[in-house]
Amino acid sequence: MNDLHPTTRAFAIERSHIRDPFWTGAQALVRDAVIPHQWNALNDRIAGAEKSCALENFRIAAGHAEGTFHGMVFQDSDVYKWIEAAALQLRQSRNASLERDVDETIDLIAAAQQPDGYLNTYFTIKAPDEKWTNLAECHEMYCAGHLFEAACAYAGATGKIRLLEIACRFADHIDTIFGPREGTRPGYPGHPEIELGLLRLFDATGEERYKALARAFIMRRGQKPHYFDEEYEARGRTWFWRDHATAWMAGDKAYSQAHVPFLEQDKAVGHAVRAVYLYTGAAHLARLERDALLLRTCRTLWDDMTGRQMYVTGAIGAQSRGEAFTSDDDLPNDTAYAESCASVGLMMFARRMIENEGDARYADVMERALYNTVRAGMSLDGTRFFYVNPLEVTPATLRGNHIYDHVQPQRQIWFACACCPPNIARTIAGLEDYVHTTREDGIYVNLYIGGETRFTQGEKALTLVQSGGQPWSGDVSLELKCDAPCEVALMLRKPSWAGVTVLRINGARVEAPVLRGYLRLECRWNDGDRIEIEMEMPVRLIHASPSVREQAGQAVLQRGPIVFCLEERDNGAALHQLRMDPDARPSPQPGEGLLAGMTTISVPGRRETLDGPDDGTILHEGARPISIPATLRFVPYFAWANRGEGEMRVWVRI
Amino acid sequence: MNDLHPTTRAFAIERSHIRDPFWTGAQALVRDAVIPHQWNALNDRIAGAEKSCALENFRIAAGHAEGTFHGMVFQDSDVYKWIEAAALQLRQSRNASLERDVDETIDLIAAAQQPDGYLNTYFTIKAPDEKWTNLAECHEMYCAGHLFEAACAYAGATGKIRLLEIACRFADHIDTIFGPREGTRPGYPGHPEIELGLLRLFDATGEERYKALARAFIMRRGQKPHYFDEEYEARGRTWFWRDHATAWMAGDKAYSQAHVPFLEQDKAVGHAVRAVYLYTGAAHLARLERDALLLRTCRTLWDDMTGRQMYVTGAIGAQSRGEAFTSDDDLPNDTAYAESCASVGLMMFARRMIENEGDARYADVMERALYNTVRAGMSLDGTRFFYVNPLEVTPATLRGNHIYDHVQPQRQIWFACACCPPNIARTIAGLEDYVHTTREDGIYVNLYIGGETRFTQGEKALTLVQSGGQPWSGDVSLELKCDAPCEVALMLRKPSWAGVTVLRINGARVEAPVLRGYLRLECRWNDGDRIEIEMEMPVRLIHASPSVREQAGQAVLQRGPIVFCLEERDNGAALHQLRMDPDARPSPQPGEGLLAGMTTISVPGRRETLDGPDDGTILHEGARPISIPATLRFVPYFAWANRGEGEMRVWVRI
Repeated sequence: MNDLHPTTRAFAIERSHIRDPFWTGAQALVRDAVIPHQWNALNDRIAGAEKSCALENFRIAAGHAEGTFHGMVFQDSDVYKWIEAAALQLRQSRNASLERDVDETIDLIAAAQQPDGYLNTYFTIKAPDEKWTNLAECHEMYCAGHLFEAACAYAGATGKIRLLEIACRFADHIDTIFGPREGTRPGYPGHPEIELGLLRLFDATGEERYKALARAFIMRRGQKPHYFDEEYEARGRTWFWRDHATAWMAGDKAYSQAHVPFLEQDKAVGHAVRAVYLYTGAAHLARLERDALLLRTCRTLWDDMTGRQMYVTGAIGAQSRGEAFTSDDDLPNDTAYAESCASVGLMMFARRMIENEGDARYADVMERALYNTVRAGMSLDGTRFFYVNPLEVTPATLRGNHIYDHVQPQRQIWFACACCPPNIARTIAGLEDYVHTTREDGIYVNLYIGGETRFTQGEKALTLVQSGGQPWSGDVSLELKCDAPCEVALMLRKPSWAGVTVLRINGARVEAPVLRGYLRLECRWNDGDRIEIEMEMPVRLIHASPSVREQAGQAVLQRGPIVFCLEERDNGAALHQLRMDPDARPSPQPGEGLLAGMTTISVPGRRETLDGPDDGTILHEGARPISIPATLRFVPYFAWANRGEGEMRVWVRI
Repeated sequence: MNDLHPTTRAFAIERSHIRDPFWTGAQALVRDAVIPHQWNALNDRIAGAEKSCALENFRIAAGHAEGTFHGMVFQDSDVYKWIEAAALQLRQSRNASLERDVDETIDLIAAAQQPDGYLNTYFTIKAPDEKWTNLAECHEMYCAGHLFEAACAYAGATGKIRLLEIACRFADHIDTIFGPREGTRPGYPGHPEIELGLLRLFDATGEERYKALARAFIMRRGQKPHYFDEEYEARGRTWFWRDHATAWMAGDKAYSQAHVPFLEQDKAVGHAVRAVYLYTGAAHLARLERDALLLRTCRTLWDDMTGRQMYVTGAIGAQSRGEAFTSDDDLPNDTAYAESCASVGLMMFARRMIENEGDARYADVMERALYNTVRAGMSLDGTRFFYVNPLEVTPATLRGNHIYDHVQPQRQIWFACACCPPNIARTIAGLEDYVHTTREDGIYVNLYIGGETRFTQGEKALTLVQSGGQPWSGDVSLELKCDAPCEVALMLRKPSWAGVTVLRINGARVEAPVLRGYLRLECRWNDGDRIEIEMEMPVRLIHASPSVREQAGQAVLQRGPIVFCLEERDNGAALHQLRMDPDARPSPQPGEGLLAGMTTISVPGRRETLDGPDDGTILHEGARPISIPATLRFVPYFAWANRGEGEMRVWVRI
């Protein structure tokens, strides 16, 4: 148990603000475009769009309006996710108008809550007799989890606890039915989320029952007799999702990570978002309860997922059907599902594992997911979103072949989809939560995102002002502010991508030991102390494991945390004909136009074709490949599909 | 119109028998294993197998048994396809027992035929009021087409015309309802087949109405107002295939090649088997009616299909969903559908196009399909069959990723599937029909399959005895027998794979002009004349068009008509790590064990991996690829998956 630490003597983050050349713009997009747009969508004010009815459902459940429920069975979660994003935005800067919208929404939620604390508009309006009869499929607990997250975020941002009270009433109600006591039901949700929500509620309130309930939900998964089978029998053998998903949601227990008990799980399986939400809750619980077995399971699952089932872009979940993991080393580039939400969940899991272990390998993956798949999920102008993040797209083939049905060559306007856009929005709006980790053994700097963060521990206080030019430059500066000298270890992540790294304190070069991937600086800090880190940021050639079939003979360019790709716009069509010379020197160059401010990369290579004209036939006997010199022009993966439709390719032939 | 020829002065094939080291064995398997097994299946005598009920349906429809219909709506076609295979077998060698089984089955069919000539057990038993109300989905005409084929084959083989009479009665009945006259219905089938069946019936009977009806079915396709929409409205907007296929069978007109009128079609689209069956009928009609426009459409569709949408194995239909074509140059190797039946249909289409144009390019494709996909469809022991013929299989990934749901790493026992095994069986049993083509301008030898064929034209008669060692050797001998000297042009195909080709007549070397890919020998032939052809059969390296993404940087080995592949058994796992040296000399070698008698090929190459041990993680920054010498051992593609389960790969990195 000695790798687990008590949190009591750790510094805590009092407040944190991002001021970063890369992320401030993205946060502004979320503030100015995404959150207002989402609010309009929730209020059915977007002309031409399918109605959300999410707020209307609450009005009907509250008795303020007549009508019936519309939308998905988990439609309520859209409201909660919007509140969470808004709360994180308000944490950055209070805004009376936005706060009023949230408060009015909270009034509505309060009115829709049932006298016993129950809160779900689908069941209240449409199927009051069927509450809690189909945990495997019906998302009541999933919605509850998002309510808990929203409540914690809003209380944290504004100090207003009304939503937290609503959340606690609902959590208390759930506890009476499912709490780990004699006479309750041993159920757990088909879609994890409530576990991590309950643990945030525990963090916010200290109520032990919430932690115990989260533990019960995690530990009950996959136990025999199987709860999903029992509730199925009890409700008379009916399925909610008759049309398309019966095989996954109930018949296939692995889809919901309910195939074996949690502590026996050693492979990431099933629906990827469900998986990482579950693991996030489990890792959080492992820390709170210093549960070494639980932590070991989390570590095993992490290693499997990131070691054998993760794309170079930090994406997970390789297949569309079931939005799910596949098998070791099966990572097709063009049929990848690679859902934005799954990478958001991967970041959440990574954050909890850093809290557990203070190991930079989690931060490396967190950063990979953030700067690549998560950022790619939102267009540069903040108006369009990807659910699916393939690593290779050939638009001409997409409509003709159903294996590509889930792939879009362009981002979609957000209101057409309910899950990824708000998830990306809350991640970007709440990015501060990922930058630092406070542990008993020090303050960890995971990401060199610019901003100002104030840490306190009892009387002690320390403010860290980060600045630099990441992800385009490896130079970082940290300025310390403190009223009184302050003793604390600073753990500065040495990213896996960093070349030669030079550390200076107040201009003097220093050496620091590297501990679990972090440079450890333990000093008595004085106000005005300045730490500078210069990290070489070479363009790196990444190879896949030789066991990955789809990436054989290919490589990826990465510089800093940024994965690069080829686009048709810069390279012409038929990107598969391009080979880069692995021994040539790649040239980083400033991007132009829409890519101004970014780094692009040019690499010498060749375009391969056959001798003689392409006569439009498939087979060429006796023809010989010829190649002509070509310059391969790479752009950051996250920026793809912002300049019109065309081919894209991350893994490039060498 | 001058590229169309009258058939009146052509020689005709009187009889033909295969005696070939490669095919005689396969025909024996069909005779001894497949046809008897299929008979048992039709009679529900296979323990443990799902019942076919195909003959029982006829008994019930005939009033000989009680019960209801079981099986697919097109279950009758299983019986007809079995009769056709049996007939082709009987053409090879009469067999009283088999003939008795067929005759009894014909009695049963006769008894099931309705007084008005109608014949379909599904509708007779189950939905008599719904006859002809859903041509788009319900396969009545498809079954009729297979009946017509069976009837022609059985009459041709045995001289017995009872089934032919049944077929004509049914065709006459269909003509009264759908014939091209005032007052009939302008319908046509969702699944083409009746067109080619009617034209065979025309060939057998000379009845012009059958040809006119086939023309109507072909020309009505895709006309507006759309018949499929009209019948849909007329029957009250119901769909037969509610569960899985509504989008294809009726909503998606292109699925059935009914999206535009036939003469406006210029791309092979939709369900691949439907497509080639339709084109086969159209090409047959084009010849019979010297219809240059129709022929031009067939040629355009041929060029599109074989030039942009065909695999090197002669497989077509790249996607599982809809068993359909995709788009130009979209030929994924691992998710390929490549149905055996589609390649059978491609051979049928090729045969009709040779009859039209006497051009060896059709025979090249026909041979490619036959020796690779069609032969691969049946195991070496004749007991198991592939529907789906992928060009790359990694068994470990199949279960984990739903994009591979249709792929089997091993052939399946035949009775689990109703379409491909009998289709392969009738093709192999009736292979003689593909070996020669008789046209006014000569006797065409398309395939150098050994055997004896007697051609007659009025009083003239000529027997051609072919022998040789194809596909393993390029040496062929043709011996001529005739009672009197006989003047006729022999057109000997010069395959696209043939290297230096030497021709001898009675031992003396001769030169012959090449006309549309055939060596033309026009002589006055005497009894005992002997033609020898020596064709160099080098191992050839085939490249895909540079526009085919999935095959970039890879090549295929082909020798003669045989396409080769790598199997795990001979090369170890991770076949994607293997690269062959395109400049190295491939060594053909005799196969061993189960592959005895075949040619295998060894090529020097390398196995690529990364330096340092594979640590079981996906991403390797800074690691460098290393390669070690390896000998790549290729086996014929058709022989894959006969020696246990493992990886397989046709396109190999170079």
